Order: sequence, then C-alpha cells, then structure tokens
Amino acid sequence: MNAIMTPDELEAALRAVGTARYHDKHPFQILLQEGRLNRDQVAAWALNRYYYQSRIPLKDAALLARLEDPALRRSWRQRIVDHDGEREGDGGIERWLRLTDSFGFDRAEVMAGRGILPATKFAVDAYVRFVSDKTLLEAIASSLTEMFSPGIIATRVSGMLAHYDFVSKETLAYFDKRLTQAPRDADFALDYVKREARRPDQQQAVIAALNFKCDVLWAQLDALYFAYVQPGLPAPGAWTP
Amino acid sequence: MNAIMTPDELEAALRAVGTARYHDKHPFQILLQEGRLNRDQVAAWALNRYYYQSRIPLKDAALLARLEDPALRRSWRQRIVDHDGEREGDGGIERWLRLTDSFGFDRAEVMAGRGILPATKFAVDAYVRFVSDKTLLEAIASSLTEMFSPGIIATRVSGMLAHYDFVSKETLAYFDKRLTQAPRDADFALDYVKREARRPDQQQAVIAALNFKCDVLWAQLDALYFAYVQPGLPAPGAWTP
Repeated sequence: MNAIMTPDELEAALRAVGTARYHDKHPFQILLQEGRLNRDQVAAWALNRYYYQSRIPLKDAALLARLEDPALRRSWRQRIVDHDGEREGDGGIERWLRLTDSFGFDRAEVMAGRGILPATKFAVDAYVRFVSDKTLLEAIASSLTEMFSPGIIATRVSGMLAHYDFVSKETLAYFDKRLTQAPRDADFALDYVKREARRPDQQQAVIAALNFKCDVLWAQLDALYFAYVQPGLPAPGAWTP
Repeated sequence: MNAIMTPDELEAALRAVGTARYHDKHPFQILLQEGRLNRDQVAAWALNRYYYQSRIPLKDAALLARLEDPALRRSWRQRIVDHDGEREGDGGIERWLRLTDSFGFDRAEVMAGRGILPATKFAVDAYVRFVSDKTLLEAIASSLTEMFSPGIIATRVSGMLAHYDFVSKETLAYFDKRLTQAPRDADFALDYVKREARRPDQQQAVIAALNFKCDVLWAQLDALYFAYVQPGLPAPGAWTP
C-alpha cells in the first residue's frame, strides 16, 4: 500500500524517474553528443527519430479527442500547431525533415517510414496506443519527459555543432523551438498531474506512465545502438549505410 | 502493380521471407546455439521469451474471436489448448515456466513480466495488436513463421544440450512438443493463405504480414543482445544479472 503524497512530493518522485531512466544517460546519446558517431550513424538516428516526431501530433490528437474541457483543449492543441505549423513549410515536422534532407534521404521515403528499425515502430506505436487506451491522467503524465528535455537538447545541440561538420544551426533548427515549447508544455502537464492525481493509486499510475515513456525513448536508442554501433547489424529491411 | 501469383508461387515468396528475415540468422541466436552465452545471458533469454509465450494464447484467442466458421475455429482452438494445457501443470506455458524455474526466477515475478526489457513488451504487444486489428488473412499469415521453426528448434536444442550444463532435456521440454505442433499449425495456416489470398493486393499483404512477424522475433533478440551481450546494458528497471 503506497502512502499518499503531497503535490510537491509527487513532483519530486517524477523528477526521480527522470534521474533514473531518462535517455540522456543512454550510450547512444553519449556517443552522439560527444562527437563519437560517424555521419551514417547520425543519419540513422535522424531517420528513425523522424518516425517518432511524425507520431507526436497523432498522439496529441488522440489525447485532444479525450479532453472534454474547452480550456484544456485550447492549451493542448498548441502542441499540434507546434508540430504541424500554421502553413506548408512550417512546424516541427518540417524542421525535422530539413535534418533528414541534409543527410540525403528522400522525403517521400522518410515520410513513409521506409528503412526505419522495427523496434522504432514498435516503441513509438506503443506510445500512441498508451495515450489512446490508458486513463487521461496517465496519458497526460506520459508527456512529462518534457520536464527533462531542455537539458538534453542543450547538450546535444552544442555537442553536435562542436564535433560534426555535417550538421549546422540550420539543420538542427528543430531543437531551437523545443527549448521554449517543451518547458511550457511540461509546466502545463505537471500542474495538471499534481492537481488531479490525489489518490495513492492515481499517483502511482502517474509515476508508472512516466516510467513507460522513458522506456519508449530508451528502447529507440537501444535499437540504434544494436543496429548501427555494436554489432552494427540493421534488422533485415532496415536502412543499411 | 504486382502480378498475381499462383498458390505455389505465393508459397515460394513466403519461404523467401524466411530465408531473408527469420531470426535463425540473428547473432544472439547464433551465440545461443553455439554455446557462447553465459548462464545469465541464457536466463535473460528465457525470462524475456516467457512474455512472448504468455501472449501467444491471447493472440490466438483474438484470432479465434474473428473466425466465423466453426470448422476453422475447431482447428485454431487447438493452439490455445497446446499452450494452456488440459489441466493445471500441463501445456506449453507451464513447460516454459519450468525453464525459467531452472534459472531460479520466481514464478510470480516471471508471470507478472517483472524485469523484462521494454523492447520485448513493445514487440510482443505489437504482434497481439496486429492480429486484432488487421484483416483475418493478414492475422493468419503472421503465424507463418512456424513454417521455419522446426529447423531452428532442432539446432537450438541440440546446441544448448551439447554446450550448457545448466539446461537439460527436461528444462527444454517445451521444444519437444513444438516439433510436432508447429508443422501441423503451419500447414493449416499455409493452406488457408494459399487458398484465400487470390488478388495481388491480398498476396502482398500476406507477404508483408510475414515480414512484420519476422521483425517481431528479430527485435526481441536485438534487445537481448544490446542489454546482455554488447554493450551489456539492460534498460533501467530490467533484470540485471
């Protein structure tokens, strides 16, 4: 039987999940930010992560479809705007495509998910499904990895710009916007969770949802490491440099 | 536009999927059958694969729930009997638990999926979902990896018995039954698919379903390799030897 936590104790427990499980400690992430990957390995990361990026607005739309309060919907829909933009050529997904463009990938192929690792698809699809199937509280809590993202973004971007001549501020522009968007989104979700998760079972469910989401991010980097670093064996059908 | 295939051409195309993508060529499988894993690495394989085994009757029940023909249901339900047994202490799942028992895992923990890798869960859940969501033809086709399983089972069991003193014919008893069950099941599914997949789009969907299932198996071994072989880093929360 878990004891009830105050909202601040719950926040502390959620931050502890990040310390234990966030993918900033994954060996692929360390190699990426320290300049120890080659161009093909970074390309594989960009290609696979496009699939994750492309599913985020679908995930957010599934969540939006479950929010009965217009005020909550107004807040949450901004996430979809951020990713899809206000017009053609705008938004986070377009900015990510500029990164895959820079590695020479064909846009139509990238957008069709051609060449991504099976594990990328399984992990990302599990996330979209989680947000559709679980309680609204758990669905919102699963977005809380954004609490930890400003740190990893700053380290990743500065490390990549320092070490790789095949990326630039322009091709990494996706991350600029996320430095302001993610904290705004995380604050909103954290306030919601601290306010709504009052019973011990709800609080434990919220922590489990954040654990789950950390697993989704971690498993994507596992797959990249296995396929493109060591032993360096992409699944049959996946992109091979 | 794909040309229409004869039933035998379709069978040949399905066998070619096995040659290209079945997990008998995965480096973890090679290490396993050549005696090059240590006891903990084999234990991790047994623990994670329990989750796959445990989901097979759920997958088959989801498929059974979609079969409108009593004759087809009679054939398909045998798969559930094989895994769940006729009585307590019988069936494939029980036999798999004897293997995890032999490594000292607690049954209640194994059955709760404690300590499995996130990627195991994502891949296996994707398979159950596929069988629930896709067409019946694709759902049945996704079982066709059983066409290739007698070969891998024979190699795996004889290799493991020859090289490891911590397994025995008794703890590997699961595989004995599968040597007769899998070909019977595969013949049934292959006949169904050859009979029902007549249009080119259906035939391509059947091939894609088998590709998908090969990905499900392959991704599970990727995750074991990354976590327990090289670099040997289980996801946070996963079983650590």
